[in-house]
Amino acid sequence: MSGERLWITALGGVNEIGKNMYLLQYADDIIVIDCGSKFPDESLLGIDLIIPDVTYLLNNIDKVRALVVTHGHEDHIGGIPYLLKQLNIPIYASRLTLGLIENKLKEHGILRQTSLHCINAESTLKFGSITTTFFNTNHSIPDCLGIAFDTPEGTVVHTGDFKFDMTPVNRQYPDIHKMADLGKNGVKFLLSESTNAERPGFTPSERLVGAHIEEAFHKAEQRIFVSTFASNVHRLQQIVDAASLTDRKLTLLGRSMVNVVRIAEELGYLNIPEGMLIEPADAAKLAPEKLAVLCTGSQGEPMAALSRLANSSHRLMEIQAGDTVLLAANPIPGNERNVARIIDNLYILGVRVIYGSRSELHVSGHGSQEELKLMLTLMKPEYFIPIHGEYRMLHHHSLLAEDVGVKSDNIFILKNGDIVESSSGVVRQSGRIAAGQILVDGLGIGDIGNVVLRDRRQLSADGILITVISLSQADGRILNEPDTISRGFVYVRNSDTLMVEINQLVATTLQGMSKADLGQWNIIKQIIKDTLGKFLYDRTKRRPMILPIIIEV
Amino acid sequence: MSGERLWITALGGVNEIGKNMYLLQYADDIIVIDCGSKFPDESLLGIDLIIPDVTYLLNNIDKVRALVVTHGHEDHIGGIPYLLKQLNIPIYASRLTLGLIENKLKEHGILRQTSLHCINAESTLKFGSITTTFFNTNHSIPDCLGIAFDTPEGTVVHTGDFKFDMTPVNRQYPDIHKMADLGKNGVKFLLSESTNAERPGFTPSERLVGAHIEEAFHKAEQRIFVSTFASNVHRLQQIVDAASLTDRKLTLLGRSMVNVVRIAEELGYLNIPEGMLIEPADAAKLAPEKLAVLCTGSQGEPMAALSRLANSSHRLMEIQAGDTVLLAANPIPGNERNVARIIDNLYILGVRVIYGSRSELHVSGHGSQEELKLMLTLMKPEYFIPIHGEYRMLHHHSLLAEDVGVKSDNIFILKNGDIVESSSGVVRQSGRIAAGQILVDGLGIGDIGNVVLRDRRQLSADGILITVISLSQADGRILNEPDTISRGFVYVRNSDTLMVEINQLVATTLQGMSKADLGQWNIIKQIIKDTLGKFLYDRTKRRPMILPIIIEV
Repeated sequence: MSGERLWITALGGVNEIGKNMYLLQYADDIIVIDCGSKFPDESLLGIDLIIPDVTYLLNNIDKVRALVVTHGHEDHIGGIPYLLKQLNIPIYASRLTLGLIENKLKEHGILRQTSLHCINAESTLKFGSITTTFFNTNHSIPDCLGIAFDTPEGTVVHTGDFKFDMTPVNRQYPDIHKMADLGKNGVKFLLSESTNAERPGFTPSERLVGAHIEEAFHKAEQRIFVSTFASNVHRLQQIVDAASLTDRKLTLLGRSMVNVVRIAEELGYLNIPEGMLIEPADAAKLAPEKLAVLCTGSQGEPMAALSRLANSSHRLMEIQAGDTVLLAANPIPGNERNVARIIDNLYILGVRVIYGSRSELHVSGHGSQEELKLMLTLMKPEYFIPIHGEYRMLHHHSLLAEDVGVKSDNIFILKNGDIVESSSGVVRQSGRIAAGQILVDGLGIGDIGNVVLRDRRQLSADGILITVISLSQADGRILNEPDTISRGFVYVRNSDTLMVEINQLVATTLQGMSKADLGQWNIIKQIIKDTLGKFLYDRTKRRPMILPIIIEV
Repeated sequence: MSGERLWITALGGVNEIGKNMYLLQYADDIIVIDCGSKFPDESLLGIDLIIPDVTYLLNNIDKVRALVVTHGHEDHIGGIPYLLKQLNIPIYASRLTLGLIENKLKEHGILRQTSLHCINAESTLKFGSITTTFFNTNHSIPDCLGIAFDTPEGTVVHTGDFKFDMTPVNRQYPDIHKMADLGKNGVKFLLSESTNAERPGFTPSERLVGAHIEEAFHKAEQRIFVSTFASNVHRLQQIVDAASLTDRKLTLLGRSMVNVVRIAEELGYLNIPEGMLIEPADAAKLAPEKLAVLCTGSQGEPMAALSRLANSSHRLMEIQAGDTVLLAANPIPGNERNVARIIDNLYILGVRVIYGSRSELHVSGHGSQEELKLMLTLMKPEYFIPIHGEYRMLHHHSLLAEDVGVKSDNIFILKNGDIVESSSGVVRQSGRIAAGQILVDGLGIGDIGNVVLRDRRQLSADGILITVISLSQADGRILNEPDTISRGFVYVRNSDTLMVEINQLVATTLQGMSKADLGQWNIIKQIIKDTLGKFLYDRTKRRPMILPIIIEV
């Protein structure tokens, strides 16, 4: 692409929740904003993680100037290790965000080779003709930045994730005057997050949660367990404060909780009174009313601390009748059943459980409709691109933008890869770059495609039936009785009628084939598959994968 | 079991939502209440349906007097065809319930052999020394009954599903005076449903939904599509009424919608003006503002009408930009993502979509805490058994019962199979009968067990690797190069390095075995599984099922 055009596009984050990654390119300078990962839904069997397709960046490797990161959530940083293994670019992020990225790179063994730059809301960065400045926002993790890119085609603002919390726990107030100034000076494009675009009103302050946590701590007569998102450092601070007020020691369960607390404390984002933090092994010695436990697993993850506690299978701690559990997180859609199972198990153990929206132990980290309108009003953008959300959220956000005065023709609801171009002030949607999802499964990145997933789906629903046929190399004669093995299809001993019938059917089918057909393995396999498939569907109404194996000896 | 004891137990419905089935036995008379089915959660791969284990009834076949059915929802009637195939007992149910059961038996081809008895709230049935009477309740389907069993050990009341709707759409009012009389005369045991025991307040009347549907019909400028639970005949009536008011014809999409409308209309539960109902094929001729469509798929079911409309793949009708869709149902936990996908697709098509709790197009059919307390207060039971709910719901319901004065020692939270016994007025929990879940997969009932499910889980996550080894029958010599086939593991051509390495590893492993080991197939298989499993996990961090097949020729 030649000189004087501004391109804005998403490699991830529109029409989906997760794997946020946006690109800004002017002339020969590309700036990448965020590089997140996303968890697979239940249709992607066996897949561990989804990351963005970065083919475009690899094809333009000499133009990529920087990765600027808005905040430290997985859907904004989870793809970074995979990106860096292919493309070594300098990373710019605020202190806490950088701490979390460093931890991630360490785990992947690629920390040393990366150049990391700590920035804050006062920083100014220049990449070619793009001047980049920042403003503080509030979210469910500290140190979040919005970004303003000053380009020859006008100013582009990317909000990152935000809410307007006027009473933030850490007193890091939203830079509302800076936002107003940006708007006054003219914003050409606003990219604003859409997570809560369907939700009317104004999201309550995180402080509301603190008040309810404190109340629950005062009421708990024995040990108190709090489960929340490890990355919500504001909430961790409020839990620490409640423990302090009620004279409880604090212990941590779960790897991510230990990691985040360590990083946040080291960097000064979390203040824990001297001597409050104790090892789980030392907790048993304390009187029950002297202990609080902060644990992972608020989404019902079966391997996390809370789930193990609820199953009485945690190796370090046992939960007792009369203990209190606070679920200070709402289940993300898809996790409801797992969370409900944990609550059931805790009640069966006689534990007091405080959960659900009426407990007010959780508030969203994302601004609701009134806050999205406030951002739009502050920025007064000429063009608007709703980002960070599934289609219905982008749609509702675009309606809000129209409500506050953005021209409907000036709103772009993009698909990942769609380009919005501005050239000599003329703005239009123009073409696409490669953008898709790369599936991570174990150590494999991108080696799982549709065929493998389709096979997994069939295997998961009806299992597999393998039938082994031995043919003579010399004359194509059938050497053995066919031998059939099934897994995940139906529990049958080989002696059972169905297996006998299957072997007979295969034998009869083979005997009925012409010599010419028997010479062509593809034909044998197809005929066996068809015959056996029809027989099994009639008999069982199931469609297992049928795999004929021919051995020539 | 000998003579003079009253037993109450559940074969399904406690510690779960679905497959409701309760038993009442006095001396040699067993009465069965409901026989429902349940949908599997995502861990039960490939399973179609879950039904109760009725071993106890089959072992006491001569004592089973009747199946009494409270109402026509699947979680109360879905298991009936499977029960009747094993045990022919007379069924007693109200007219609409019976209509829905008949339809089900017809589909299973077992209608003729069953004796069906139509009852209503005025009926009295005698089974041995048990006298059974009924009272009307309100729920999201008409013709719901609560049941009172008068036994020598006292009166047992089973509420069925209920809310207190004082302004019911069909003017079938709750029999609140009958309930009060039962309480006044003394209820020994109350079994009451617990679905909404976590929800404070009073569930709004179904009429509220009607008002919002009517408003949406008035506002719609083109065609209007309404998706709701087919069985909610009250809501169907309100949709018919709104169509009538706005001078629209009505067409039906989806098999269950067509069935329920036919049955409910035939039996007089649904009044559709003459000429309003038209075939989908005739709908195309109408002006858009003259048509309303009632369709299935409100839970996001991928094969149902609404999903096909949203994908522009319905064979009878195409949805257009500017049309309106009302989602008059909330997603049941687990279905949120599928429903969200449909809303996204409809918005992409330019359709107006009205959905979500704020649209007030849905109210629950189950009573909230104040209604549960009202029922408890009317009945004044000596003993209380919360039924119909997961553990946390039963737990909250038991707290409500204590609040209104039931002694905490007199409350039994049961597991399926647990027996509450009353003998000469002495009540205690006593023993268990067989109770479990029977999995239905295709035509197979109960033939899928833990081994098959465990295999399906492994296959779904990491696929399968089959390696075929041919040994000489004469001397145990290895005859062929090993041949390995993978499905759902990783996409590799046979020529790829990994497959070559796998075959080499198998060959080397076999060559390293002693002659004695080679003589024992189990040992060969185990060694191959271990060696290959470790190699693959190191290389890919995946654990496919490994299936060595040995052929002797």
